Amino acid sequence: MRELVLVGIGTGNPDHLTRAGEAAIRAAEVILVPRKEGKGDLADLRLAICRDLGVEAKVRLFDLPVRDASGDYRAGVDAWHDAIAAAWVAALPPEAGTVALLVWGDPSLYDSTLRIADRLSPAPRIRVIPGITALQALTAAHAIPLNRINATVLITTGRQVRDHGWPEGADRVAVLLDGETSFLSLDPDGLTIWWGAFLGMENEILVHGPLSQVAETIVRVRAEARAAHGWIMDTYLLERG
Amino acid sequence: MRELVLVGIGTGNPDHLTRAGEAAIRAAEVILVPRKEGKGDLADLRLAICRDLGVEAKVRLFDLPVRDASGDYRAGVDAWHDAIAAAWVAALPPEAGTVALLVWGDPSLYDSTLRIADRLSPAPRIRVIPGITALQALTAAHAIPLNRINATVLITTGRQVRDHGWPEGADRVAVLLDGETSFLSLDPDGLTIWWGAFLGMENEILVHGPLSQVAETIVRVRAEARAAHGWIMDTYLLERG
Repeated sequence: MRELVLVGIGTGNPDHLTRAGEAAIRAAEVILVPRKEGKGDLADLRLAICRDLGVEAKVRLFDLPVRDASGDYRAGVDAWHDAIAAAWVAALPPEAGTVALLVWGDPSLYDSTLRIADRLSPAPRIRVIPGITALQALTAAHAIPLNRINATVLITTGRQVRDHGWPEGADRVAVLLDGETSFLSLDPDGLTIWWGAFLGMENEILVHGPLSQVAETIVRVRAEARAAHGWIMDTYLLERG
Repeated sequence: MRELVLVGIGTGNPDHLTRAGEAAIRAAEVILVPRKEGKGDLADLRLAICRDLGVEAKVRLFDLPVRDASGDYRAGVDAWHDAIAAAWVAALPPEAGTVALLVWGDPSLYDSTLRIADRLSPAPRIRVIPGITALQALTAAHAIPLNRINATVLITTGRQVRDHGWPEGADRVAVLLDGETSFLSLDPDGLTIWWGAFLGMENEILVHGPLSQVAETIVRVRAEARAAHGWIMDTYLLERG
């Protein structure tokens, strides 16, 4: 592998693809796509994008290894990333040249593809094509700015919110990677939430309002949508005051 | 105006445009473009995108009002935003229907277009098409993740950094809207910087390293590039520890 191109493809809407992303997919000699991800409708979207661009013949499928969640978390993740890098290489034809990987959202935001790519030896040239993140899909869907004028925004994870509560001094907090409605661990008094699931997709769901008034609605809507689709991806922005 | 569509077009690279952005520009009845912005190469990029899509005939130019910087800052900005909203309306043909505005980066991140649009009366339907932000263009150019694993990132402004120093408890800090190399106001000890200017464009410049070692280089390179181009837009990510 001479060059590995990580193409951000957005949050599940094929129209999030940029011209640069499309050009990179067309130019690649091989496109690596995981065989399945256990995320229902999402699993086939990478293939649908490749079919739509007429580049299906360049796709090589690889089996995504299963993460060992039994031992130490960090060691388990490290071993899993090693195994993914090995699965990429095993799926490649000899002399693959330029290889493209289609990455949900943007390769820079809470995504491990860059870290997995660092394990390749010999190291290929790494090129990143930025894509629409869940944060932008969220604020676009609600038609709101991410920030107040000249103010800060903290990007954080569900785990951080559960473990540490409202971040000291924060005004607006964007929460990603939250599989557990971690906003329930916060005192809702004075907090406003803009929540979204399946952002940018046909089945997009949005809820916003004072957290004290809409938290139960979000929990219910989220559970129903998850049951209906078999999976869910959601993101939210919180504001204090 | 029945509907106003704010299309995020990325940081100056026409290939940042998404399929959704392209479709929205094609579908609009009118495309509002400011006559000039005083930013050299940037001024014509919106028109170049419209020409490239063959929709030039739908463009209506408007004169961007000048901001009165003499009095109170906030009042000056408010009056300026009122004047911009009025300039949009004045430039529109009667019965404009769906109007598109091409917005640098993403309409959600440190951009006033949504706030200006809120001043329109009667209020049109507002639709936002997300675009690539300077943050994603920066991390893509450096091929780095924005966040450390499970860690937070604070998005802030140059002014906040100058006024308040390193944000309490922050691990990584992304700085936008900084016209004054505000990183110079921080103690560089233990800080790493990933800096970029003209991100995604042909004349992109990148510098990274320990802030204590590269701060002077950035100041010099930035001044030279600004003199050569007549303008500059730069962004950076700082990490502590």
